[in-house]
Amino acid sequence: MTYCVGLLLNDGMVLLSDTRTNAGLDNISTYRKMFHFEDPGERVITIMTAGSLSVTQTTIARLREAIEAPEATGETSIMLAPTMLKVADIVGNMLAEVRGEIDEKLSAMQGASASMIVAGQRKGGAMRLFLIYPEGNFIEATEDTPFLQIGEHKYGKPILDRVVKPSTSLSDAQKAVLLSMDSTLRSNLSVGMPLDLCVIEKDACKVSSTRRIEAGDEQFRAMSEAWSKALRDGFRQINL
Amino acid sequence: MTYCVGLLLNDGMVLLSDTRTNAGLDNISTYRKMFHFEDPGERVITIMTAGSLSVTQTTIARLREAIEAPEATGETSIMLAPTMLKVADIVGNMLAEVRGEIDEKLSAMQGASASMIVAGQRKGGAMRLFLIYPEGNFIEATEDTPFLQIGEHKYGKPILDRVVKPSTSLSDAQKAVLLSMDSTLRSNLSVGMPLDLCVIEKDACKVSSTRRIEAGDEQFRAMSEAWSKALRDGFRQINL
Repeated sequence: MTYCVGLLLNDGMVLLSDTRTNAGLDNISTYRKMFHFEDPGERVITIMTAGSLSVTQTTIARLREAIEAPEATGETSIMLAPTMLKVADIVGNMLAEVRGEIDEKLSAMQGASASMIVAGQRKGGAMRLFLIYPEGNFIEATEDTPFLQIGEHKYGKPILDRVVKPSTSLSDAQKAVLLSMDSTLRSNLSVGMPLDLCVIEKDACKVSSTRRIEAGDEQFRAMSEAWSKALRDGFRQINL
Repeated sequence: MTYCVGLLLNDGMVLLSDTRTNAGLDNISTYRKMFHFEDPGERVITIMTAGSLSVTQTTIARLREAIEAPEATGETSIMLAPTMLKVADIVGNMLAEVRGEIDEKLSAMQGASASMIVAGQRKGGAMRLFLIYPEGNFIEATEDTPFLQIGEHKYGKPILDRVVKPSTSLSDAQKAVLLSMDSTLRSNLSVGMPLDLCVIEKDACKVSSTRRIEAGDEQFRAMSEAWSKALRDGFRQINL
């Protein structure tokens, strides 16, 4: 399983993904699930993926091919698309196309499926955050719902529901997605370290910072323990 | 959807269920999902249900019929069964039988399904807590995993993972299941108040207390707000 989360805030966007992939029960590996496409200062797009690795890898590879193709246009390349909505559209169509092809090959077995989060901004446009469904259709984060999740999303949703608003600072937002991931890691073993964390500041049109958090990360462990302690203390203080 | 949770602790068992049932999207009602079977001081069994109302109502009704039947034996009546394991077995078989019948009627549509939590103790036996799957097979709570959940279980699992151990007091355990339910209510609208809370003290072999918590419950609201505040305060105190 996978857990990826993206926040759309007044000050920027914060994205976090895990890296565990299992192809069958005995084949557990680490794969990056976060992909950056950048023309710094002009355009930034980050895609996070969940689901069948064969579908997501092929989709990302074809999106790259379409960018590099000599005949690339705003209709085919996410780096030339005139709007972020068009970017989501291109990604959605590519995902649906790849899933269709692979599903056909696998039709005797249970189908392959995948979903994606697409975050980005082009110069002069607004920051936008999309969740793309396996069928290729998509929804967008809004003022009311400033976060989107894919994969094993339920364990980590309560903390986001309580903490994340558009006015949340980028620093608090990083804390929130890491605690959301921490709850997911504790409750579901099939989501695993290392983690990829990314911040895209508003109007920077580039990836402002990325961080890979390895299994032994001292800072993450300390934060996780502080949170456990805060929860236990809070729990103790509540009267029934 | 539904959320039910049961804790098996050194001092007793704590059970909590919501009451929202929707038969189709426009037919949302309140139905009790917690059922008690008692011979006080001799035997207590509490069953909580999730899934298709047609399956769970029929299963509970047939279990009652089997108890009241003049030809009732330890093979057919959960009130005569020689062990709690046998109780789980009878409930599992009845659930599988009813589900099979209803599935047959519904075969043109998507099948009906249901799962149950069975908690109980008979005089001289140990307290036992079972989760019964739609297929009729079941698992049991243990020292290592002292809680079981059915229905919309993921939102409320992180708090239980952190707080509940066999040595947890019955008072803390009630707080824990209510906070687990609170997180679920906030994150999924299809789980709804009122709630049914039940405590079975060890070796009492009766339902020690039950409480129905209505939507406007002042104490529940205060606890929910205190928990939100504790989480926000804890969140603020953590350094990234």
